[in-house]
Formats: sequence, structure tokens, C-alpha cells
Amino acid sequence: MKQVDLNQVKENIEYLAIGSELLTSAYPETNSLFLAEKLDNLGLRLRYKSVVSDSLEDIVRAVKVALNRSRLIFISGGLGPTEDDRTREAVAQAVKKPLIFYPEIIKKIEDRFAWRGAKMTPSNRQQAYIIQGAEILDNPNGTAPGMWLETSKHLLVLLPGPPAEFNPMVEKLMADRLELYRNKYVLKAVIKTTGAGESWVEDRIKSVYRLLPEDLELTTLASPGEVQIRLTLRVKETNRENERIFNKIKNRIINLLGDKVFSTDGENLEEVIGHKLAALGQTVACAESCTGGLLADRITAVPGSSNYFLASLVTYSNRAKTRFLGVPTRLIREKGAVSREVAESMAAGARKKTGATLALATTGIAGPGGGSARKPVGLVYIGLASPDGIIVTENYFQGGRGQIKFQTTQKALDMLRLKLKEYQSLD
Amino acid sequence: MKQVDLNQVKENIEYLAIGSELLTSAYPETNSLFLAEKLDNLGLRLRYKSVVSDSLEDIVRAVKVALNRSRLIFISGGLGPTEDDRTREAVAQAVKKPLIFYPEIIKKIEDRFAWRGAKMTPSNRQQAYIIQGAEILDNPNGTAPGMWLETSKHLLVLLPGPPAEFNPMVEKLMADRLELYRNKYVLKAVIKTTGAGESWVEDRIKSVYRLLPEDLELTTLASPGEVQIRLTLRVKETNRENERIFNKIKNRIINLLGDKVFSTDGENLEEVIGHKLAALGQTVACAESCTGGLLADRITAVPGSSNYFLASLVTYSNRAKTRFLGVPTRLIREKGAVSREVAESMAAGARKKTGATLALATTGIAGPGGGSARKPVGLVYIGLASPDGIIVTENYFQGGRGQIKFQTTQKALDMLRLKLKEYQSLD
Repeated sequence: MKQVDLNQVKENIEYLAIGSELLTSAYPETNSLFLAEKLDNLGLRLRYKSVVSDSLEDIVRAVKVALNRSRLIFISGGLGPTEDDRTREAVAQAVKKPLIFYPEIIKKIEDRFAWRGAKMTPSNRQQAYIIQGAEILDNPNGTAPGMWLETSKHLLVLLPGPPAEFNPMVEKLMADRLELYRNKYVLKAVIKTTGAGESWVEDRIKSVYRLLPEDLELTTLASPGEVQIRLTLRVKETNRENERIFNKIKNRIINLLGDKVFSTDGENLEEVIGHKLAALGQTVACAESCTGGLLADRITAVPGSSNYFLASLVTYSNRAKTRFLGVPTRLIREKGAVSREVAESMAAGARKKTGATLALATTGIAGPGGGSARKPVGLVYIGLASPDGIIVTENYFQGGRGQIKFQTTQKALDMLRLKLKEYQSLD
Repeated sequence: MKQVDLNQVKENIEYLAIGSELLTSAYPETNSLFLAEKLDNLGLRLRYKSVVSDSLEDIVRAVKVALNRSRLIFISGGLGPTEDDRTREAVAQAVKKPLIFYPEIIKKIEDRFAWRGAKMTPSNRQQAYIIQGAEILDNPNGTAPGMWLETSKHLLVLLPGPPAEFNPMVEKLMADRLELYRNKYVLKAVIKTTGAGESWVEDRIKSVYRLLPEDLELTTLASPGEVQIRLTLRVKETNRENERIFNKIKNRIINLLGDKVFSTDGENLEEVIGHKLAALGQTVACAESCTGGLLADRITAVPGSSNYFLASLVTYSNRAKTRFLGVPTRLIREKGAVSREVAESMAAGARKKTGATLALATTGIAGPGGGSARKPVGLVYIGLASPDGIIVTENYFQGGRGQIKFQTTQKALDMLRLKLKEYQSLD
């Protein structure tokens, strides 16, 4: 078999997506994100990616551009049975090879239709044409087979566009054929923190930057209420020594960030607190005002949460706060519904009325209306009631209504996480 | 001023994003979606879009490819103050023009820093270089100015990469300079439906397809719990006649789909029911089991929802259902928590205990565990209590835990919408 120069391939990888819809605002192109992640696991990266319309002329031109500047070229989309599916024809034209009809592909497509009790449409016939010299890549989730075409200078991989077909085929390619093109072995870690901004995190771990070996990449990724530190080590081969260095740096970062770190294995905050509650055999309930149910929604997003989550009293009206949580009418009148005292009373009420070990309460001004000079939009009190008593935090969050709601839940879950940590350390 | 041939421009538009991070899985490229939407409003569309790394060589090559196949080229990113920002240099090289230093840009950047009480860094100096012959495009939200460069064959538009800077600059360009390149006038409508699948919707409106004038595009877009019908008319000029045709077809579709249509002006379901409740002066409360707070979260996502939303009792445990909603223990024991009878009792309890005009209740099996042959994952009962009595629907939803939760809230909100419609028609 011809073999394209390995090193040429590794540095010159391109992805081309075919489809007019991917040039509109309604359909973001996402296959390349999946592909990039899988390539990264082999120590490889994309150098170019492009999207082109369904027009035969445009596809031919784009494939020629790719042939001119890249060696390993992934092309997805345009392999379906409709008149708009011109990728086979365009690639054949660009590489100057004929299309060959494969009766066995038709047989497979017919079987696929028959299995669903349907009949193959005549238009599926075009899916049985394969570029001369290409190997057929099996598509277990659709009628369009992929193609693997090696020439003296290029390696072209044609794949169907729908992610449900594209992703599994990419996954399989990475595990077998593309393993040969592996550039590096990759060790990855994601350290998730909450309760600190990106600049605080970067400053805190700055002593680590000068320890980093050249092949160890450290990046931070911030979103409202969360900062991730991503460590990626790319090495020619993994061995005890570089694994040791990787883990040493990872642990050093974790130590420097201390309590801000909530997860080092990909778990999100609701999963972390869920697993801790389950392990400790404790239960939680909520009393929500400004979060309006989002706190409970996040907690119950975790499968099995019914084992430790009892209830949330989403008390938007003042009357509901009194009725379901026992918050005194006078307290609301004197201190206001958005106050330290009401947060405390809500948390205590939720714990008492539900019988949960722990209870979280939120009350604040999510905006855009309802703010004042003394109590601006973004002011949120969060209460946590536990067998040790009640703590309340005062917070000022930035952003729109949705962001304020989300950051409140993030902070509330984090208060719960820190409390559960105290219990764990008593074991 | 030179003037690139208008018709050439209209058919040959390309977008090029610069940035190595946009070739990784962590950073999807989104500027092109915004740009495509704004171009569409002028009857224009992208023919190619590409992403290229920060490497000078790669950018030069990509710009040359674009010059070779396109006329109007938008380039974003790589205009910052760091060493990785090479777009100025690369484009100048590709179009064979020198970079000229503009002291007045430095002055502007200094003022910007001073205004924030900071000092400009020396690296910002490179942002004051402009390609010879280019006009400066003001960037009100950042230090990097854009450029507008017309040559005999091309129109190049250089813009900063961050969406917060890119989007407003695109918006402004569309309103003034690019208006000249308007190809068509565009009339758009989005008809949102729920309660029916995409194939039902397409079948139902199939009589409309043969009425469509050639320049009227009809597409359907399905997501869990919602099918949108998008109508786009692109015409040389708008006049009474084509507006009449557009509205006739739009109204015909709305009539054919009847009660399934919940919005024709972009509103989502929680906004629709919010505005109806406010207009009718009625209030709503919820009793949630399987939706775990998501129903209340959606209702409270609408600003001003505190005027009509009283409370949600998120009763995950059976004890909470009894305690807060008055669901009889015996009923749960005999019929099961996931049953028509318990949904009915929860809805009635929520209405009674909160004093709301209307109450919604959800109980079901969101999975992945907890299903059985008789009560499979996806089985959900939804109750609606109103002054007219209580109705309960039995539903079988597909998908993962999150999708089942979402579809349940969609159906619950829709039951509420249809009930409110009855009241409106009584007026």
C-alpha cells in the first residue's frame, strides 16, 4: 500500500465541511469540534478548517485548495442520496479519478431499508459510487459509506455529515487506521474551581508557570461562576518519569488553589455534591426565591438524586414564604424579602419543614427591574442551614437575569460542598 | 473612490476567522453565524467560510486563497496587541501593500486606557498600523480598530475577533457601508409550534408548498418539544403586492396548524403564557416531581414573572408530596407516585395551598433508572388545576433525563396556554 510521508501528514491536517446550510446562521458547524478533540488525543491538530456550499464547482475548488496546502484531509457531508449531494463527484474530479459502481453497497443499503420494513429509493443508487482506489469505510448508522483514499501525496477521508454518523466513524478511525499517525501521547487533566475569578486563579498559580516543561500546556477557561485549569502534556511516549512530572504539577496546582477546587475528574458541581451527600447518607432541601427553581433543577439533573434530594420550596411570593417556610410576615415587612434575615429564616424553615439534614435558601434581585440604590440588581443572600446552625452570605453578581440566577446556584452549591467537606474530614 | 463591481461582490462573499484556539474543540467559531444572519437581511449569503491558525504563513496563504475565489472578504481576529496577532501583517503581505503608522490611533488607545485609570502597554503600538489605502473602522468596544480596504477587484473588511467587538461593528457596517451591496429586501416570519412532530407539521401544510412563489423559502426546524416554520421572502423591492402574498401564506400556515401555533413574533412558550397571565390578571403555581424545578425555572426566566407566579412546590420525596401538597399517603401507596391520580392530587393541592388561579403538576420517570415494563422511562403525567376542574394528560417522552424534563415542561406550559386561550375567547 502507498504510504504518505508520516511527518508531512502530522503537520498538515485540514477539515472541510460541505453543506449550504452550514453557511447560514441556523446551523453551526460542530463536526470539527469533535474531530479536533479526537485528533488532540493523538497529539495532532487541525491547521485549517473550512465550510463550503453544496455547489459542485465550489466543492471542487475547495478540495483543490486543500490538496494544495494539506496532506491529511477530512471531508464531511454531501454523501447523501439527494441531488444536492455532490461530494463524491467533486472529490473524484479534484483528484482526477473516476467513480466506480459497487453493487455490494446497494445490497447493504437495501438490507438496511428492508430491516426497517421500507424499500430503498432509486436515488440511493448514487451512494454506491466510490472513487477509484478508495477503500470503503463502513457506516453503521446510515446509508452513506465513507471513503479512505491514499494517493502519493495525500490521504483523504470522506465521511457523512450527520454527527450521529460522523462521530462514531471518526472514533473508529482514531482507534485503528489513524493510530499510525499518532504524533504524541497525551495526558490531560481538568481542574475545576469556583469562588474565584480568572485573574485570581492565574496569580495564585503563577509560580507553577516557570516549572512547566516545554511540552506541558496550561490554559485557563473562565465562564460565569467557574474557572477551569486545563493541563495537557504531549510526549513522544508515556513513561513513569513524565507521568510523575505531570502529576506533580497537577497536585501542586490543586494545593495552591485549595478549597476553590471542586473537581479534578470532569464532574460538575451538582455531581460532586450529589456523590458526597449519597456517601454521607445525608439529605438536602431548598428554599428558592430569586433562583426560581434553577437550584433544584441542577440538583435533580443528576441521575439518582431522589436518594438525597427531598424538596425545594420555590416561594416567589411573600405569602408563599410565610405559608410554606414559616418566614414571619413581620420580618419580611421590616427587613425586606431580600435580606440576610429572610435568607436565614428561609433556610431554617426549609430544613425544619422537610426534615432534611441540610437546606439551602436563595433570595435576591435577579433583575432587570426591582433594583434600588440600597439593594441593587445582583444582590443575593444565600443561606445554608445545617445541624451546626445557619450561615448566610451576601453576594453581588454581575450580568443578566439568567447569569445572576446561575451564579447564585453555583455559589449555593459551593457553600453546600464546603460544609460537606467539614463532615468528611471528621470521619 | 474605486468601486468593486456590485454583482461580482454579491455572489462572492467569504469569511475568514484567524485564531489557533478556533481550531481546537474548546472554542467554537461563532462570529460567522452572526455575520451570516446580518448578511441574510440584505439578501446576501456566504459562499465560503474558513478558520486558520495564528501562523503568519498560514494566514497569508488563506488570504490569497480568498482573494483568488471571492470579492467581498470579511476577516476577523488577530488584530490584538500580542505577538500572536499577525493579521495586519499577513493581509498587507497578501495584497502587496505596506503598513502605515497612524499616531492618532495611539492617541485613542491611550485615552481608552486613561479612562479606565490604566496606562497603555508598549505592545499596543502595533495596533496603530493600518494597511495603505484602507479606511479605519472605529471600534467602540476595544483597542483594535477595523479596516475597510477597496482594491480594483476586492473589498476586504478586517474586524476584531471578540464577539463583543465584532458584532456591533458588523451591525454598523450593515446599516451604512454594506447597504450599498444589498441584493434583496427580505421579509421573515418564524411560526413556532408545539405538540406535533416535524412530519405532522410538514404533512399538514403540504398544500402551501405549491402556492409558494419562487423567491419564498419555507423551512422547518425541529428540536425536542418544538417545531418552527421559517418563511423568508427575498425580493428586489418590497411593495404592497409581495407583502400581501407573504402575509397570505403566513396566515394560511397559521390557520392550517391551528392550536399547535403558540408564537409568531419570536416569543418562547414561557413568555407567551407570562404575557397572557399578566393580561388576564391571573396567577399560577406548580407542583413538580420529575421536572425537579425546571418548570418554575422557565416561568421565572421571564422578567416581571413575580407578578403572576406565586410558588412551585418541588416535591421529590413522597413525604414532601403529602406534607406540602396534601397528597394522601394511601393514594401514593395504592397508585404509585407516578400515576394519573397523584398528578391530579398534586395539581389540586398546589392550587389550594398557594391560592393561585391555576396550578400545574408533573410526575413521571425521567430516567435513566426507575423504569419498569408497566411504567417505562419517559412516562409522565401532567395535571392542570383551574377553576373549571382538573385535567391530566398521560405522556410518553423520548430521550435522556434532560430531554424528558424539558419536554415535560414544554407540554405543561402548552396545557396552560390552551387553558388561558379558552378564557381569552370568553372576553
